[in-house]
Amino acid sequence: MKSEKISDAVVRRLPVYLRFLNELSHREVLTVSSQELGQKLDLNPAQIRKDLAYFGDFGRKGIGYDVSYLIEKIRQILNLDQQINVALVGAGNLGQALSNYNTYVKDNMRIIAVFDANPDKIGKKVKDITIQPIEELEQTVRDKHIQIGIITVPDVEAQRVADQLVAAGIGAILNFAPTIIKVPSDVRIHAADFTTDLISLAYYLQSGKELPENES
Amino acid sequence: MKSEKISDAVVRRLPVYLRFLNELSHREVLTVSSQELGQKLDLNPAQIRKDLAYFGDFGRKGIGYDVSYLIEKIRQILNLDQQINVALVGAGNLGQALSNYNTYVKDNMRIIAVFDANPDKIGKKVKDITIQPIEELEQTVRDKHIQIGIITVPDVEAQRVADQLVAAGIGAILNFAPTIIKVPSDVRIHAADFTTDLISLAYYLQSGKELPENES
Repeated sequence: MKSEKISDAVVRRLPVYLRFLNELSHREVLTVSSQELGQKLDLNPAQIRKDLAYFGDFGRKGIGYDVSYLIEKIRQILNLDQQINVALVGAGNLGQALSNYNTYVKDNMRIIAVFDANPDKIGKKVKDITIQPIEELEQTVRDKHIQIGIITVPDVEAQRVADQLVAAGIGAILNFAPTIIKVPSDVRIHAADFTTDLISLAYYLQSGKELPENES
Repeated sequence: MKSEKISDAVVRRLPVYLRFLNELSHREVLTVSSQELGQKLDLNPAQIRKDLAYFGDFGRKGIGYDVSYLIEKIRQILNLDQQINVALVGAGNLGQALSNYNTYVKDNMRIIAVFDANPDKIGKKVKDITIQPIEELEQTVRDKHIQIGIITVPDVEAQRVADQLVAAGIGAILNFAPTIIKVPSDVRIHAADFTTDLISLAYYLQSGKELPENES
């Protein structure tokens, strides 16, 4: 009986575990050790055991974890035992690319509505979803029980879109716009800003780099 | 005189600071306080002061930080005082979307080469860059002094592409393929896997959610 909250870092690793476990299940592998998980996922086996212990101690020494049980548990914890509907706002190149990745987003999570402000795009399709005008966002989010919004609009429009999503009662937002968005504390927001990721990589380019103060 | 290494978390925040500072500079704002930075970036001002103290103590009480000096310092630390060339491997929807974001990737960092394995795409253009066959990857990376690779190929091809990038002497990789890629320890790799991000958001959907063990 654990009552501690799962840390954000662990929550972010759960989908990674889940993806590999699904792969194992697909290959009809029944059990997996923390060593195997660690090797495949480039994580410390002790870290993995600690992460998985959050969900009850169901790994067995010498045998490992039961793959299907672990999948079921992680899906429960991630709320993936229910259908989760996602709206995509912004049908530009990035939005369209994300829709194509919709096949990866199995696990009961699906983009079911796409919105854009550009009249030329309304009525066209992204995959099999018809692009709706952004004016329909709030109503559709409510009617279709959409719980997560993905924002792929230009940065100047991102806050307004977020406000609309929040007003419609969305629970979480994945923001690709390269800007900081403010939401009420009961709405979860993740920044998926790859320009930040990309630029931060430059730091690591010179091996053994020291802080500038030390370069003299 | 500091000799400590900057933590990964701080390195990841630096481009966020930089983007806002560039915005301030564009608006001809000369100084900024940690409070203003904190409010805009949704970070604790104390955290910001701690982050910026890594680079020498150049904030002044009651005045704040000199915007242009801070920009210069952060650019130096991130190696952005030199041109950094980036290669994109995979000219699908996502790759094309990333190329469009190339305008954000200012700061001396630019995608200058695009590769794809599909013969139909070779010779076509993504923005103003001609798509090259993947066979030319290693030679081009060497010839054009490319230091960072972005992988946007399907997951089954990702490791092979990473191996080629590494063989060509790349220093860092941003991997969008939803799979774990292994690289030597002197190559920095970041996973930019938004499906992981998206799925982990589902955890936060039920407010006050407890671990399953507590639900009985």
